[in-house]
Amino acid sequence: MESAFAEVGTSKAAARFRIAAGEVFASKGYGATTTREIATHLDLSPGALYPHYRTKESLLYAISLEGHAASLDSVLRADDTDEEPAARLASTMSAHTSWHARNHSIARVVQYELRALSHGHFRTIATLRAATAAVFDDIIAAGRERGDFDVDDADATSLAINSLAIDVSRWFSPSKRRDITELGTTYASLALRLVGARNAV
Amino acid sequence: MESAFAEVGTSKAAARFRIAAGEVFASKGYGATTTREIATHLDLSPGALYPHYRTKESLLYAISLEGHAASLDSVLRADDTDEEPAARLASTMSAHTSWHARNHSIARVVQYELRALSHGHFRTIATLRAATAAVFDDIIAAGRERGDFDVDDADATSLAINSLAIDVSRWFSPSKRRDITELGTTYASLALRLVGARNAV
Repeated sequence: MESAFAEVGTSKAAARFRIAAGEVFASKGYGATTTREIATHLDLSPGALYPHYRTKESLLYAISLEGHAASLDSVLRADDTDEEPAARLASTMSAHTSWHARNHSIARVVQYELRALSHGHFRTIATLRAATAAVFDDIIAAGRERGDFDVDDADATSLAINSLAIDVSRWFSPSKRRDITELGTTYASLALRLVGARNAV
Repeated sequence: MESAFAEVGTSKAAARFRIAAGEVFASKGYGATTTREIATHLDLSPGALYPHYRTKESLLYAISLEGHAASLDSVLRADDTDEEPAARLASTMSAHTSWHARNHSIARVVQYELRALSHGHFRTIATLRAATAAVFDDIIAAGRERGDFDVDDADATSLAINSLAIDVSRWFSPSKRRDITELGTTYASLALRLVGARNAV
């Protein structure tokens, strides 16, 4: 079986192109960027990109895969399934929110340019998105089962929790000097309110 | 004093250009679109746009002003200040959410392409955004004052409520056949949970 990462590029040179592309996509938008500009951003000739990424879309895919994998990883690492559901929700929501604040620039690219991906690439990314959503679904189900959470609509609540964290990348501005750890804690409390956690409000 | 709307274009022809531009921006992204493509989208020559909008940025500004004004208007019309704070929050959140679902395509343009506006144009749009935020700030303050809401951080809670509604435009897809009125009602309940409204959960 071909690895999902086969197209992504594992060399240091490829990583430099992904970083450069992320910066240019974030500032100009994916649609307005040319592969030439990405090479120029690194003081390289346009042909230097070609051995690593043959199209602009393959670069967007690589960036999206890397960004979504990192975001999923931060949520999974924050989720200690031995903990009670409320503690799990607090720690995963805090991680999810902080990730989108800290990585707001690349998060905007990977969240808002998804429509530019090929159908096949989009489907791969969708599995990572679904895996992140499943963590919150699972915590909500566990909390309901124990009677710790009072939830009317589990799907809508899980979507809203994920949505709150993702939208941080839209409005977050480092110039406002908002403390990222504190933001994570605040959003953890808001998530606990959304699930009607006992003693949380 | 020059009206903020002087640049926006009040003719029917200008309105057709705004609609066409909104469609092309939504599908290709603002950065990748040329004014020529917008005219072509209407089967017109490139020169036909010029009497109405001299630059692509002036079109984005006109669309953003129109979209933000419509969004603010929907929230203001839903806000009956004679009602109790919980009822005000439910009705404004429902309106805000429904607007972003119903107008998800243009909402994405006006929410996610703001950075492409000139500084002066951005400042005008920012006043409309602040006016929308102020409605939620005001309702939260009224609910706290009456002891109807239990809020830890009013600014973060107001931002989160606004953020939840705006992010609907990112994920909403008409193909999923989600009922927009029901979505508004669900999000109204979630907003009441965020403010810790008495009897709401």
